[in-house]
Amino acid sequence: MMQDGHLPIGVFDSGVGGLTVVRSLQAALPHESFIYLGDTARVPYGTKSPATVVRYSLNNARFLLSRGIKMLVVACNTASAQSIPALQQELPIPVVGMIDPGARAALAATHSGAIGVIGTYGTVESGAYQKAIAELRTGLRVDAEPCPLLVPLAEEGWLSGDVPRMVIREYLQRLQSRFPEADVLVMGCTHYPLFRDLLAETTRDLFGHPVELVDSGVAAAREVAYLLDRRNLKAPAGKEGKLTVMVTDKSRIDVVGQRFLGRPLGEIQAVDIPV
Amino acid sequence: MMQDGHLPIGVFDSGVGGLTVVRSLQAALPHESFIYLGDTARVPYGTKSPATVVRYSLNNARFLLSRGIKMLVVACNTASAQSIPALQQELPIPVVGMIDPGARAALAATHSGAIGVIGTYGTVESGAYQKAIAELRTGLRVDAEPCPLLVPLAEEGWLSGDVPRMVIREYLQRLQSRFPEADVLVMGCTHYPLFRDLLAETTRDLFGHPVELVDSGVAAAREVAYLLDRRNLKAPAGKEGKLTVMVTDKSRIDVVGQRFLGRPLGEIQAVDIPV
Repeated sequence: MMQDGHLPIGVFDSGVGGLTVVRSLQAALPHESFIYLGDTARVPYGTKSPATVVRYSLNNARFLLSRGIKMLVVACNTASAQSIPALQQELPIPVVGMIDPGARAALAATHSGAIGVIGTYGTVESGAYQKAIAELRTGLRVDAEPCPLLVPLAEEGWLSGDVPRMVIREYLQRLQSRFPEADVLVMGCTHYPLFRDLLAETTRDLFGHPVELVDSGVAAAREVAYLLDRRNLKAPAGKEGKLTVMVTDKSRIDVVGQRFLGRPLGEIQAVDIPV
Repeated sequence: MMQDGHLPIGVFDSGVGGLTVVRSLQAALPHESFIYLGDTARVPYGTKSPATVVRYSLNNARFLLSRGIKMLVVACNTASAQSIPALQQELPIPVVGMIDPGARAALAATHSGAIGVIGTYGTVESGAYQKAIAELRTGLRVDAEPCPLLVPLAEEGWLSGDVPRMVIREYLQRLQSRFPEADVLVMGCTHYPLFRDLLAETTRDLFGHPVELVDSGVAAAREVAYLLDRRNLKAPAGKEGKLTVMVTDKSRIDVVGQRFLGRPLGEIQAVDIPV
């Protein structure tokens, strides 16, 4: 029987955004191989209800499990916020989402104890970051603002210029007016790291003090590295890992995906997943 | 057996945008009843591939047919552009999409013979409006520009102000620079009539001559009225028709839907459709 260490890590996302998480995973774990499943036929998850998101997450996880994976990373923050308990209950392998790692990174970064979170409607309304942070330490304050237009802007490649600047300013103004003491901002959606420069510039301007940006994908990659080590699941060193990209709908994936991964995606497989 | 005329007209859309079409249908046909199915669990269609859109359209049509309808209106332009032949082949009832009525209305409106179309990627890349217009009369010129950010802007309610103005200007500038002689602009997506004022203002400004906006939903409502009459399928006069709204995911539907229908939606049923 194949040693588990040789198996790839499964990563699923609602679409292509999770490729920013793959980028962080590959940077932290160059010997690991990854199977990425983007549910592009049903994207986005961030505007859909928890019941629908849990159903889709289970479909995706079962599909990846059937391909042989040693660990599952839920790259989509919305799916992480709503589906981790259901996934952990069903799957016989470790499941890592974005919320707990992001919450821990936010705690490590804050001085004022006031943590802002931006995400989709689904992530913000779930209260998942708020709960995860509250469980880490009492007395912290968290406020979250949905920023739904940032996903389509990122997918269209409108990453700089007046339109994204005005949209980001509008959302962060809402947060700042309620929560001026925040000194950390969790980028609680895979798409948001593409706006890092604009987010940094706008928070500096609006809050008048440094606001540290937390990338949940980077934090999750550290968590994956730690778990692989602790559970003795690391891939053997010496050989570079591979990335297999699968999507449920191939439309525009090569154009858009490259923006998120930071390099060409190579071959992309279109798959049907049982629903 | 119930007379067909008493049955409702089925309308499906990828989400809530098709409620603008329902609004036009109700205005033209006050005695007709409608069953509206919004596939909000899989919205949007406009960025997905033709194969996926045809599959989803057939799912939706079969579901509505099973509820008893006398005619099917495909309110989504993307679904109309890609699925009408498949739907007409399978369904034993008349099927009306957005493309042919919109094309005829554009032909009636143009003086210069130069017709601009705006829509989703799916609609524009299908070439459906271009083909439908070419079949009506030779020698017409058609150019189309995808405007993908208008759907999320409309769903978020950013209908006026600097952000939608700048986004619309960017898209229409691209069209104008290739096609300055256009004197008609087909709003080839259910969401675009919500930007009618901004579109009118921007075309006036950019093109320097009047550009008539064509609403495919309004044109389709005229087509439905004509077909009901010709096929003797009209509902009996005397009583106001009803609207039943069903969605595959209930998230945010009441907030967003009202914007498209122009009044509260009443009771909304969440349904599972066989896929």
